[in-house]
Amino acid sequence: MNKERLALDVMGGDNAPRAILGGAMLAVQDSFHTPMAPERIILVGDEEQLTALLEEAGGNPGFEVQHASEVVEMCDPPTAPLRGKTDSSIAVAVKAVATGDAGAVISMGNTGALVASATRLMGTLAGVKRPGIAVTFDLDKKPLTVLDMGANTAPKPDHLVQYALMGSIYAREGLGCEVPRVALLNIGEESSKGPELLREAHASMGTVPIDFVGNIEGNALFDGQADVVVSDGFTGNVVLKLLEGFSSFLLGLCQKELQQHGVDWAPEALTNMKQRIDYSEYGGALLLGVQGVVVVGHGRSDERAVANALVLAARQLDLGVNESIVKGIAQAGAAPGA
Amino acid sequence: MNKERLALDVMGGDNAPRAILGGAMLAVQDSFHTPMAPERIILVGDEEQLTALLEEAGGNPGFEVQHASEVVEMCDPPTAPLRGKTDSSIAVAVKAVATGDAGAVISMGNTGALVASATRLMGTLAGVKRPGIAVTFDLDKKPLTVLDMGANTAPKPDHLVQYALMGSIYAREGLGCEVPRVALLNIGEESSKGPELLREAHASMGTVPIDFVGNIEGNALFDGQADVVVSDGFTGNVVLKLLEGFSSFLLGLCQKELQQHGVDWAPEALTNMKQRIDYSEYGGALLLGVQGVVVVGHGRSDERAVANALVLAARQLDLGVNESIVKGIAQAGAAPGA
Repeated sequence: MNKERLALDVMGGDNAPRAILGGAMLAVQDSFHTPMAPERIILVGDEEQLTALLEEAGGNPGFEVQHASEVVEMCDPPTAPLRGKTDSSIAVAVKAVATGDAGAVISMGNTGALVASATRLMGTLAGVKRPGIAVTFDLDKKPLTVLDMGANTAPKPDHLVQYALMGSIYAREGLGCEVPRVALLNIGEESSKGPELLREAHASMGTVPIDFVGNIEGNALFDGQADVVVSDGFTGNVVLKLLEGFSSFLLGLCQKELQQHGVDWAPEALTNMKQRIDYSEYGGALLLGVQGVVVVGHGRSDERAVANALVLAARQLDLGVNESIVKGIAQAGAAPGA
Repeated sequence: MNKERLALDVMGGDNAPRAILGGAMLAVQDSFHTPMAPERIILVGDEEQLTALLEEAGGNPGFEVQHASEVVEMCDPPTAPLRGKTDSSIAVAVKAVATGDAGAVISMGNTGALVASATRLMGTLAGVKRPGIAVTFDLDKKPLTVLDMGANTAPKPDHLVQYALMGSIYAREGLGCEVPRVALLNIGEESSKGPELLREAHASMGTVPIDFVGNIEGNALFDGQADVVVSDGFTGNVVLKLLEGFSSFLLGLCQKELQQHGVDWAPEALTNMKQRIDYSEYGGALLLGVQGVVVVGHGRSDERAVANALVLAARQLDLGVNESIVKGIAQAGAAPGA
């Protein structure tokens, strides 16, 4: 039993298992930006494959290996780790946290399956109504956290209010933003704008201790007017994927246009740009509100992204972000008018 | 009575009235890409101001001027042209179409007010349940039309099915796409994904004669997999504004990064890029489904955008897109299974 340990799903993701294991190897190298002890990492997956890959990589530096006989595929339903594939790498990794054998789970696999099994098997934090996925973008060195990015596609107003509180606490404790400004993603700035869900959530934001700055529209998201933006999970998920596709499209167009005008595009600049808007540079998304740390990595994660995901998970545990959330929600519940 | 005429709201938009009048002047110049006769344009606004501006510009080349004593401001409610500001430039321009004095209305002013008054005063096309705002983006010379971008923020499944049909007809008749591929904006490719609204709309797409290619996610929007993308108005509006803000942010970042790497950014390339993603290059958005042509221009429209908006409106009238929509909806209604 060691709640500081990180259970890494080695079988999930487009580049699994090789890039996932590679990420673990990278995270324990002295040359890595914040190296960790290999004993902190549990590799969860097919033992035979893992043993072969570890040998190929020059031996196991000290990881624990936990065997999982199955793999949740991208086309599997969210319930797969709970029903049917109960010995999948996601299920085994989540159970490691649920039983207290680890404090965090990291997977680049099926997001829905990870969210559903973590919510069910680990349980929600005291007072939390629904967990939410928080994604942090690096905007000109100023992090912007948006949640929910898809855990809860039919939220109620009080879910959004809790996301605002959890996001604010995360921005403060996890990202060092002293007084996070929290906004609600909507189609107009006035409190009367948008669907009933958002109008009701807007009206209730005063019940939690946050610096609520009102509604924000899509075009202002990147203007630095807010540190935390709250959205329903459907819109949040569309936004997340849209930004990903649009940035690739736009950077490709940029490159073409510049070439046509005889300007050589510096490849480092392109790499830099992509990193600025790629949330996997932050290691992935966090599922906030569950009993344990859950990092939802991008399916396309490479070794660097996996190593960053391990760092993100370790930081959440070390900083005690979940403890702060529990305290914050208890205080909000006890506040007058709550 | 001349249904070929275009009623231009000269008082709406950030740069009104000067840039709006400038746009009309540009549209009738021989050097313009598709010049039109000044007699085709009705300028709607404060007569005194307009007369002064026309004199300043060297005289009225032949526009009709219709006086409107009021202006709908951006902060006014959508009902302003219907109640209270009934002599506003939006109200007068919309009434010109409603009475048959013109065939199209073009405004860069308050979108909600334009949509509400056009829907109410002009009425919907036969069989159309709810009008929708269609925006066309120029993606690598291949137009992508997305609707609804905000006319209907709480649609029903059959509204989305009609948007699919209207969008398909518009892409074919208005943009020359022979067999438009129509997709539904959702958070998963499978028909079982997303909220009930989208699942039901997906199931009913077979009742209209379109080439329905299924759900599309945000990241694939720019991959050329669809020519028409259908969305609920809330998500569509968030997407529209997000793309606007994000492209400015990203291009600014690009410029900075390139400079840091000693690469001079060619200003023409930047201008080119902005044009590729700026829907006002297509003249603005279209409100599809009303009895008449309605062009919803961007508030920030400059002279060029206004001139393009006039061209867009004229094209819709000349091509008879509305007649095709009425025919298409009647046929779909008579189709088996509809």
